[in-house]
Amino acid sequence: MDADRFDRLVSLRRELHRHPEPAWCEFYTTARIIDELDRIGVDRQYVGSDLYASEDRLAVPDDDELEHWYDRARDAGADSDVLERLRGGNTGVLAVLEKGDGPTVGLRVDIDGLPREESDDPGHTPADEGFRSETGAMHACGHDAHVVFGIGVLEAIAEGDFEGTLKVLFQPAEEVVGGAKPIAESGHLDDVDSFLAVHVGLDHPTGEVVAGITDFLAVSQFEANFTGDPAHAGGHPARGRNAVQAMAAAVQNLYAIPRNEGGATRVNAGVVEGGTATNIVPEHAAIEGEVRGETTDLMEYMRERADDVLDHAAGMHQCEVSVETTGEAPSADNDDGIVNLAYDVAGEVPSVTSRLRTDPLGGSEDATFLMRRVQEQGGNAAYVAVGTDHPGGHHTATFDVDEDSIAIGVDWLTDTIAALGQSEPASRR
Amino acid sequence: MDADRFDRLVSLRRELHRHPEPAWCEFYTTARIIDELDRIGVDRQYVGSDLYASEDRLAVPDDDELEHWYDRARDAGADSDVLERLRGGNTGVLAVLEKGDGPTVGLRVDIDGLPREESDDPGHTPADEGFRSETGAMHACGHDAHVVFGIGVLEAIAEGDFEGTLKVLFQPAEEVVGGAKPIAESGHLDDVDSFLAVHVGLDHPTGEVVAGITDFLAVSQFEANFTGDPAHAGGHPARGRNAVQAMAAAVQNLYAIPRNEGGATRVNAGVVEGGTATNIVPEHAAIEGEVRGETTDLMEYMRERADDVLDHAAGMHQCEVSVETTGEAPSADNDDGIVNLAYDVAGEVPSVTSRLRTDPLGGSEDATFLMRRVQEQGGNAAYVAVGTDHPGGHHTATFDVDEDSIAIGVDWLTDTIAALGQSEPASRR
Amino acid sequence: MDADRFDRLVSLRRELHRHPEPAWCEFYTTARIIDELDRIGVDRQYVGSDLYASEDRLAVPDDDELEHWYDRARDAGADSDVLERLRGGNTGVLAVLEKGDGPTVGLRVDIDGLPREESDDPGHTPADEGFRSETGAMHACGHDAHVVFGIGVLEAIAEGDFEGTLKVLFQPAEEVVGGAKPIAESGHLDDVDSFLAVHVGLDHPTGEVVAGITDFLAVSQFEANFTGDPAHAGGHPARGRNAVQAMAAAVQNLYAIPRNEGGATRVNAGVVEGGTATNIVPEHAAIEGEVRGETTDLMEYMRERADDVLDHAAGMHQCEVSVETTGEAPSADNDDGIVNLAYDVAGEVPSVTSRLRTDPLGGSEDATFLMRRVQEQGGNAAYVAVGTDHPGGHHTATFDVDEDSIAIGVDWLTDTIAALGQSEPASRR
Amino acid sequence: MDADRFDRLVSLRRELHRHPEPAWCEFYTTARIIDELDRIGVDRQYVGSDLYASEDRLAVPDDDELEHWYDRARDAGADSDVLERLRGGNTGVLAVLEKGDGPTVGLRVDIDGLPREESDDPGHTPADEGFRSETGAMHACGHDAHVVFGIGVLEAIAEGDFEGTLKVLFQPAEEVVGGAKPIAESGHLDDVDSFLAVHVGLDHPTGEVVAGITDFLAVSQFEANFTGDPAHAGGHPARGRNAVQAMAAAVQNLYAIPRNEGGATRVNAGVVEGGTATNIVPEHAAIEGEVRGETTDLMEYMRERADDVLDHAAGMHQCEVSVETTGEAPSADNDDGIVNLAYDVAGEVPSVTSRLRTDPLGGSEDATFLMRRVQEQGGNAAYVAVGTDHPGGHHTATFDVDEDSIAIGVDWLTDTIAALGQSEPASRR
Repeated sequence: MDADRFDRLVSLRRELHRHPEPAWCEFYTTARIIDELDRIGVDRQYVGSDLYASEDRLAVPDDDELEHWYDRARDAGADSDVLERLRGGNTGVLAVLEKGDGPTVGLRVDIDGLPREESDDPGHTPADEGFRSETGAMHACGHDAHVVFGIGVLEAIAEGDFEGTLKVLFQPAEEVVGGAKPIAESGHLDDVDSFLAVHVGLDHPTGEVVAGITDFLAVSQFEANFTGDPAHAGGHPARGRNAVQAMAAAVQNLYAIPRNEGGATRVNAGVVEGGTATNIVPEHAAIEGEVRGETTDLMEYMRERADDVLDHAAGMHQCEVSVETTGEAPSADNDDGIVNLAYDVAGEVPSVTSRLRTDPLGGSEDATFLMRRVQEQGGNAAYVAVGTDHPGGHHTATFDVDEDSIAIGVDWLTDTIAALGQSEPASRR
Repeated sequence: MDADRFDRLVSLRRELHRHPEPAWCEFYTTARIIDELDRIGVDRQYVGSDLYASEDRLAVPDDDELEHWYDRARDAGADSDVLERLRGGNTGVLAVLEKGDGPTVGLRVDIDGLPREESDDPGHTPADEGFRSETGAMHACGHDAHVVFGIGVLEAIAEGDFEGTLKVLFQPAEEVVGGAKPIAESGHLDDVDSFLAVHVGLDHPTGEVVAGITDFLAVSQFEANFTGDPAHAGGHPARGRNAVQAMAAAVQNLYAIPRNEGGATRVNAGVVEGGTATNIVPEHAAIEGEVRGETTDLMEYMRERADDVLDHAAGMHQCEVSVETTGEAPSADNDDGIVNLAYDVAGEVPSVTSRLRTDPLGGSEDATFLMRRVQEQGGNAAYVAVGTDHPGGHHTATFDVDEDSIAIGVDWLTDTIAALGQSEPASRR
Repeated sequence: MDADRFDRLVSLRRELHRHPEPAWCEFYTTARIIDELDRIGVDRQYVGSDLYASEDRLAVPDDDELEHWYDRARDAGADSDVLERLRGGNTGVLAVLEKGDGPTVGLRVDIDGLPREESDDPGHTPADEGFRSETGAMHACGHDAHVVFGIGVLEAIAEGDFEGTLKVLFQPAEEVVGGAKPIAESGHLDDVDSFLAVHVGLDHPTGEVVAGITDFLAVSQFEANFTGDPAHAGGHPARGRNAVQAMAAAVQNLYAIPRNEGGATRVNAGVVEGGTATNIVPEHAAIEGEVRGETTDLMEYMRERADDVLDHAAGMHQCEVSVETTGEAPSADNDDGIVNLAYDVAGEVPSVTSRLRTDPLGGSEDATFLMRRVQEQGGNAAYVAVGTDHPGGHHTATFDVDEDSIAIGVDWLTDTIAALGQSEPASRR
Repeated sequence: MDADRFDRLVSLRRELHRHPEPAWCEFYTTARIIDELDRIGVDRQYVGSDLYASEDRLAVPDDDELEHWYDRARDAGADSDVLERLRGGNTGVLAVLEKGDGPTVGLRVDIDGLPREESDDPGHTPADEGFRSETGAMHACGHDAHVVFGIGVLEAIAEGDFEGTLKVLFQPAEEVVGGAKPIAESGHLDDVDSFLAVHVGLDHPTGEVVAGITDFLAVSQFEANFTGDPAHAGGHPARGRNAVQAMAAAVQNLYAIPRNEGGATRVNAGVVEGGTATNIVPEHAAIEGEVRGETTDLMEYMRERADDVLDHAAGMHQCEVSVETTGEAPSADNDDGIVNLAYDVAGEVPSVTSRLRTDPLGGSEDATFLMRRVQEQGGNAAYVAVGTDHPGGHHTATFDVDEDSIAIGVDWLTDTIAALGQSEPASRR
């Protein structure tokens, strides 16, 4: 990659890093992507509700939240005509580049940030160099780099001699496991012969790439709302029904769901809250939690046990509970052909100093919905990783990407897509 | 009380009911009180930091919160010069009326609302008649009526033939047990010979009054902040230190502190929160809680046990915890002389249809700081109640006062204060 | 009391102290009481199933336990003909002394020990002087002294000029709140005009007596059995259903049942057990627990909440639970007449150095069943206490009675009964 | 195997099945093994304290328990001279057969039963055919078959043309992970060139064998004793320090130790107990528990977290806790050479109808101590399994072995040992 392009991509990444937006609130981000797509001149763009059925989105925040981020994007200078199309949280875009006859290749990058504060410690590069988040949210999982991968690859393929169709999906709402499912169901990827999803980092250093990330955990995310009755905590402690006691009993027993001999499981009560005042018996409490499993069966084992715990924790304190599934993703497998090809290509990319054929993840990703959809329709899919030296762990306040990995990722993905363009299309059903 | 005055007091009460403000945020309320004091023409007013040492306030909210309510008060039309004096949460005012030689009588009313939503059910009078809260907070404990008691009594005493000095304290921040302590320490009440604190309701019907509320629970309020380490809940569950697990273990065991043979105790984890995202091991959690005891010793027993629970709940999950006392009130006793006098006067007030000499509370009140201070300086004190038919319980969404009780309260308090003015001043030390 | 009688009573008390037997297992104890009754020559004795309906007994131990204590009593030299009548746990005896026309007076003493080890520390008098328990159980609540009160009073009344009928009830199974109910229901006390129940100690020193112990806590005792499924804890942790997890969740939440503004409540999980081996997921667990309340309503509040906790703790871990009530006692009140008389008599007994008219207990006692029965039938009742210096608290390993209190108790009870013999019988309905 | 030998082995197995004995109490079992060894005429026997340092045994029961089983064995007809050598729980025996020059081959079988009741349901073969346990314990893990494997192999090798030395270890106390460690440390196996440990069942059907069981979980077993103070639960609830509350808090939080991304972990509170009486605040409670990990590191992670939970659960309720390690086993790996040889031999045994080279266990075994010791000294080791149709799972009340598997096991083990006798001895250090 030449220095100009690299500088431009780094500059875009830093701009996005200053403007992280949580799931379904990627107004500024989507608008900036569309600017770039217009500049590149892609053939077609499917934005928001053209990309998915708006009502099938999962884990959409409430109107106040959406409006807050919408206004922020507008104030930050996002194009107001574009914003209008995204109103109500219809974020994300699919860019289609048509370069003659040949296979259809798909690339998926995700674009949302996380609802957490970014570090301002000296030594944290974004803080030191002036591109720390300005929004209260944070790109703590590298999706700013992912967007740039997508833009860089589109540019390079547009200029190169790839023959076929390239579809780059800038997916919203990955962090809440909410965006991929409606897009998979939309059919936009049904004609894809070869599909790549990509992630940066994952504890691999700069220069290392992985041709097939395996061992996705199936995940189910839920929100449990406990309802009791308030009462004055001094005067009438026994008149209340204590929703915080119910919630605490649930948390204690959720983590204590028996481990399963069938494989890895996970559980987390990630966000909890309850009560209204120190001296009122709490009438309300909530858990935003999740369970995972090495297989979909194991995830379902955890979810069934979690539901029992939630129900009985409420009953134990004479409260009610309602439990809603807010996000879900299955597990998925890579296709060997595409993994081997990406691995071979990596051997030819000078900046790739280390390559792994496969490596396990131990996390969840709703890209699995997209991979399974492509595979069900006769295509192949793989999930690849581009290493980056990251000081803090994923999702922590000091996460950051080594920007050299941007060039490595764009180059490797471009070459891999070019090679996929030369392979036989999968025999379509 | 004549109909005009009654209508005016009811109207003021309804205005205040529409503008409830939480502890230390009583900007609008204080400004409106000062309007009334100016109208009445009291001799002296001590506002905010003239009334207490600003740095001794307990449970002051953070700057964002203070600013939010400040701006709201301004937008709602509060006098901006007055607001300027209250900036930073220096709310509340002491009004002094000097009517010649004679004893000094004190009356304390509290002015803050509660941070809870008000009901908008049909049948809830404030909703039906258009004076439901507009602020998101609620006068769910009748402090709007208390303010009006204070104003009404000042008017009546100003016009009457009371000889002596009347000090009416419009106290902020009772609900967080945070306002009375610094005011007691300020010495403003040290010359008070007879001191009354008053509460509306307390499960007594309209027409009934209580000359001495007894059995105050001593209370200690605290905020516990648990700190752990975040980690990705799918990829690295064992790298985190889970502050929500610590908090839940604390909640479960706080409520399970052994009951005490020495008398009534209470415990509440009134407000809890923790975590940042569904898929992150929670690095932070907090409890705003309280313990109470029939005696100060019993409160201290609970607090000592609570501190042990909090410390070890943190350690159990390899987290840290810091525990801060945010409010505290002792228990206090009424003086018989003043109780008997108020009881006798009640027999002479036509609208009082039932009178009790004493009745137990079973709650806490930081008026106890003021009562003890007056008593330590040689004065007498009593805590009285003015019954009111209230549909919902104190601190619940459907609490409301029967406005007839406003006239009853003002009349009885005025007559009692007049009678106290004729009694011998306590021999001062 | 003359020195010979005192020595004999002390010697009997020490013999009983060496042979404590738990509830419904008082084989040796009952046999020794019958020896004494035979010696004294009472008019009638109702033993075991002549005293109550055997099937109405509560908290009867299993056959192995009964047999163990039966065999022990036989080996310790108890009369085998008497033992035969007690087989199956039909212990206890009512002695009737008929001394001509006059009122019927009842005295109840209880006779069972506690299932706990006695201290063998130097300084613990029974250890030092060779009458420490030989059975593994312990007279840690002074019922050995109670038996001797009953014997001493019978002797004294038999020799004295009391006119009327004296019924002394040697009641089994007080500690499990299991013996009084079937005896009350038997009707044996329906003709009693004046009824006394007595307890030694209760934190009163030697020389002090209390004419009316008040504030009995109503109590409900239960046994909860949790059932799950076993599985190998290493190989198949998710195949089990973990009864110990259910039990632990129950214990945590039982103690956390909200305190009640209506008065004192209590809860205890006194004995728990579960599981079969370290490496097996526990398929069984149990709690022997109790709740109490200052009133029967408060006890029922606690019991209802406890039942909810137990049910849902089981469900939370996919286990079943069965909950059985093993003992129960209401609260009861003293009749003033009998309290005043006992108080007055105490003023005439030289060895009584301090007398209280009433004092609160804060514990439970199934004597309340007997008191209520007598009162329902038109008689009067009171519960009295005879102070004793006791080094360790009731129910602890170092409890002991000061034997001087035996003479004081017998003298005061005898004189009180004599005085009751001279009062008018209650008018019978 | 001829029918006579088969019948004899089946008969021995059934006799042992009637006399299961828990860890370190295998008095009858050891005595019967020695009878058989005498009959076969092995060259040397190391019994009890000749086999290990008595003081190095782990998880030895208390004297009462040892005596109970000792007396039982004597009453059941075990040889009293032999019993005398085993007194104090020095059970187990190593049999050495010397058959000329050649390698030393070791075979380990374990001999203890489990402390659980056996089913007497119709359909449970031991119940139907009269060899159900008579002891209260149960051979619920097939160690009765293991003993018979050892005896059968010794007979067959004694009669065959194997050249070398065969050491068959009849190991006590496997179920408590307590017997192998002191035997490994004794050095008795240091000269073993090839070492086999064998287990029956493990969910493999009759006819199937596994040449290398893999994936042992490292395990640490512990006993935690919580100590508080007793008090009367009605009269003085706050005077006690409640050890059952501490234990319950520990149980809840032990199971909630975070899952680990490094691999499988386990935790179990297998046996718990606490308290003395329903109405006494419990002064004592205990947990016999265990943690496991796929690696020794993971086990140590669990143990470290468990220790934190236990300490702080005690502190939270102002109790003390002492935690003692009662058993421990590392993980271990099979040597390929021996696995391959056993797999090849299985192909030649007619009754073996299915063979697996390897299969994961997911459980723990203290044979790993022996395997690691042999490997450290330059020998090879493998852990093999002989399938058997078992109606109930291992450790459950309806576990049983299909006796056909006895012949299969003895034949396969004998042929494998014979083949090992012909292989080159490992080069000794």
